[in-house]
Amino acid sequence: MDYVKNAWYVAGWASEFDDNLRALTILEQNVVMFRASTGKVVAMEDRCPHRLLPLSLGKRVGDAIQCGYHGMTFDCQGKCIRVPGQDNLPASADIAAYLVHEKHDITWIWMGDPQKADPDDIFDMPQFTDPAWDAHLGQALHLKSNYLNVAENLVDPAHVSFVHPTTLGNTASENVPVHAATDGEVIKAWRWIRDAEPIGFFKAFGNFSGNVDRWHYYNLHLPSIAVIDFGSAATEDNLAEDERDKGVRLYALHFLTPVNDQYTIDRWMHLRNTAINDQAVSQNLDELFKTAFAEDVEILEAVQREENRLQTRKPVRIAIDKGPLVYRKRINDLIEKEKAENTVV
Amino acid sequence: MDYVKNAWYVAGWASEFDDNLRALTILEQNVVMFRASTGKVVAMEDRCPHRLLPLSLGKRVGDAIQCGYHGMTFDCQGKCIRVPGQDNLPASADIAAYLVHEKHDITWIWMGDPQKADPDDIFDMPQFTDPAWDAHLGQALHLKSNYLNVAENLVDPAHVSFVHPTTLGNTASENVPVHAATDGEVIKAWRWIRDAEPIGFFKAFGNFSGNVDRWHYYNLHLPSIAVIDFGSAATEDNLAEDERDKGVRLYALHFLTPVNDQYTIDRWMHLRNTAINDQAVSQNLDELFKTAFAEDVEILEAVQREENRLQTRKPVRIAIDKGPLVYRKRINDLIEKEKAENTVV
Amino acid sequence: MDYVKNAWYVAGWASEFDDNLRALTILEQNVVMFRASTGKVVAMEDRCPHRLLPLSLGKRVGDAIQCGYHGMTFDCQGKCIRVPGQDNLPASADIAAYLVHEKHDITWIWMGDPQKADPDDIFDMPQFTDPAWDAHLGQALHLKSNYLNVAENLVDPAHVSFVHPTTLGNTASENVPVHAATDGEVIKAWRWIRDAEPIGFFKAFGNFSGNVDRWHYYNLHLPSIAVIDFGSAATEDNLAEDERDKGVRLYALHFLTPVNDQYTIDRWMHLRNTAINDQAVSQNLDELFKTAFAEDVEILEAVQREENRLQTRKPVRIAIDKGPLVYRKRINDLIEKEKAENTVV
Repeated sequence: MDYVKNAWYVAGWASEFDDNLRALTILEQNVVMFRASTGKVVAMEDRCPHRLLPLSLGKRVGDAIQCGYHGMTFDCQGKCIRVPGQDNLPASADIAAYLVHEKHDITWIWMGDPQKADPDDIFDMPQFTDPAWDAHLGQALHLKSNYLNVAENLVDPAHVSFVHPTTLGNTASENVPVHAATDGEVIKAWRWIRDAEPIGFFKAFGNFSGNVDRWHYYNLHLPSIAVIDFGSAATEDNLAEDERDKGVRLYALHFLTPVNDQYTIDRWMHLRNTAINDQAVSQNLDELFKTAFAEDVEILEAVQREENRLQTRKPVRIAIDKGPLVYRKRINDLIEKEKAENTVV
Repeated sequence: MDYVKNAWYVAGWASEFDDNLRALTILEQNVVMFRASTGKVVAMEDRCPHRLLPLSLGKRVGDAIQCGYHGMTFDCQGKCIRVPGQDNLPASADIAAYLVHEKHDITWIWMGDPQKADPDDIFDMPQFTDPAWDAHLGQALHLKSNYLNVAENLVDPAHVSFVHPTTLGNTASENVPVHAATDGEVIKAWRWIRDAEPIGFFKAFGNFSGNVDRWHYYNLHLPSIAVIDFGSAATEDNLAEDERDKGVRLYALHFLTPVNDQYTIDRWMHLRNTAINDQAVSQNLDELFKTAFAEDVEILEAVQREENRLQTRKPVRIAIDKGPLVYRKRINDLIEKEKAENTVV
Repeated sequence: MDYVKNAWYVAGWASEFDDNLRALTILEQNVVMFRASTGKVVAMEDRCPHRLLPLSLGKRVGDAIQCGYHGMTFDCQGKCIRVPGQDNLPASADIAAYLVHEKHDITWIWMGDPQKADPDDIFDMPQFTDPAWDAHLGQALHLKSNYLNVAENLVDPAHVSFVHPTTLGNTASENVPVHAATDGEVIKAWRWIRDAEPIGFFKAFGNFSGNVDRWHYYNLHLPSIAVIDFGSAATEDNLAEDERDKGVRLYALHFLTPVNDQYTIDRWMHLRNTAINDQAVSQNLDELFKTAFAEDVEILEAVQREENRLQTRKPVRIAIDKGPLVYRKRINDLIEKEKAENTVV
């Protein structure tokens, strides 16, 4: 399938990369990555152009990779620097290298036109380094699902009441309408549930004794990063929409890496404006999120299986679909734009 | 593939259905079924028209099903009765419901045109309720085989000598020709083996001391129900063809449910004119049948695997194929007839 | 895919065939084989022409096979000799039989035009029966790889330095160029590494104290048999190319049986001019070869997986590819020749 290529995707947490060759698949491309002697992570096409062996099955020779079949060797820009048994180095033997950048303990990769890559465009938010916030890297969720289905679940506050009735949602929110809007490259969908029982998550985490006002803001950054801003405040505080920092506020971040049209890796992390540096709270939140995200996996994989069957009717669209529909349209627009740019030489 | 749709198929024994949502695939359609508060079993398309989640992953709300993704709710006629987050109910959100009828502890489903469904057409035989007969529900045989291959095995007395040489057949019958005829919607194939050693089945079950006359009548009711009438009588009794009730007579019934073009469920039961209400005999027969049917499964799955390979020659047809050939022709005729009826509006 | 059919392929070691029906797949054809009462191994199409059941699921009746479904019976020339339930035997019921010949404890099969089969063409070498040589049958390596990829690995001395750095090669040979030539139906690729440390194999096996001259001659006999002649001699002996018998000399033979386009069986054996009749040495060599060949399997299966992915560029060809390229061209020529012969009737 087609993907948005001109974008920074998460290849992994920075801690996942070391001296060893690591094989990944991103946007259906096989990539080999390792942390070079400079400390920088490098990424190259994971396929020798000679007999197609994945270079990840070869070995490092300094900061180059030597193929495990006949020893052809490539530096970390993808340039072929050795062909055993001959002196000349055919230029056609060079392979693709990909730009990599690390920021806030996350390793980002650019699969598209290197001319268009700018590290300043990498996703960031001030809370990553704000001492009033605790930022905690979570885990990698592997889903047998197209990333579009995963992403649209992340701009969809309405599913929370039904998929996560005991963790992230409850019945109080079932009928509350969803607002949606677009802000540049970010698609937003949100709603407030006023004067209701706290959700399971905040029962375990928040310490609320009575009813709360709670919010869910889903911000889906094109093409595949979601920032979910949710929290609660005691109803008697009568919080305004822009006073969310006064409540217990959590961000759940999802960095989606499309592997292929049937597989997605969702690396998630969370930030909070309370219990700063409290590792026990971080671990506890990890467990709560793992429980909740497992609920999503079951749903999303079932949806994918069903999409893979022959379709005999057009899906019905309903009011809560605004965010997902805008998202899919924008993704298509981006893909068409990239294609048009590649055609004009 | 195409199936005969205007027919009552077995969805399961009545005991298989209770309060819980149960997912089935019949004629390549995913169906969700449950026993409603009325006591009646209901059946609906197992797919939410919104994001395609199987409704069987949702939950019952009274006699309706609420989708597990966004809470869209369908009554048991398939009508959409709730869309959380909005007031209007789009008519295009309705889903298919299927007619279900229970009879003699069996749950039947109609996958075709509801206008043509008549519960009186459901398979029946007087022995189900005749006190001179013992009727015993067996089990469900799952076969990785197209139902046509399974069905033709059930109008084929000739295979018994070779597939079941120690259970349902023996060498005495190898060369006995097979008769075949058609009677309305029933294709019949039969033969008598006179003055021969009893088969393994009747050695274990019948109490015969000398040679027997035995018969095998295969009655295949279109599209997918087989009634196999077989039995034995002492040769000295010199039984006429229409005196079979005087011998030890068994009916093996097979209700085939086509799942898809590579998978069939064969629910079987047996009836007998001896040892009425003797549970030990029923259990013993169950075991004998399980042994015999496992022999069919091995053959039929191997045939299916071979059919899935590229074919380079036309199969040879032989004298014993009369029943199977008529069966396949009649199935095709029924499918063509249904297509023609659907075209003329 | 297309295969060279007019060739003797190895069906197995002679010891693999006995009274029992054995099912094999060779060149994508299913074959049933057994040792007949005459002591000769016979081979037939493994599919009844009636309902396609593999005959290997049936049973032997003398030297004929009776199908396990309806008892149709075929003699070991493939002629249908019985159709239960009828007297006439349709000629269209005959099935293919294949020529089989045994030589030096190996069972060979001819899948092509029987008119062109000559047992004198079966692969042979004088060392099989020369008392100065020890010949030892090894094992069967199963590879999830097209046989062309396996075969080209067997006319490729250059891979040894990189795939087998501790067993069959070492770094001393990395840059030594490869010679290649064609001699009739044999494609040859070879090189000498002079005055270098012995490879792991000969450290374990040879008893060399100082540096050695070593050679690797790969002889690939079309379509799928490789004779690898390798050995070492002390460098001070200054061995000439044609004096290899004076060194420690080993032949590793590989008989490739293409199963289908994704699966190959490689039966290997070895011969040596030292330690004659020493079973312990034979066992020890078996273990060394098993270790080395497992290294090939990992590479070849990874190459196959990569070839099965969508290809976006032409592979690069390098100097050491001479042998493999000639091999692939000759295979194509042979296939085209057979097609042309079959077209002209």
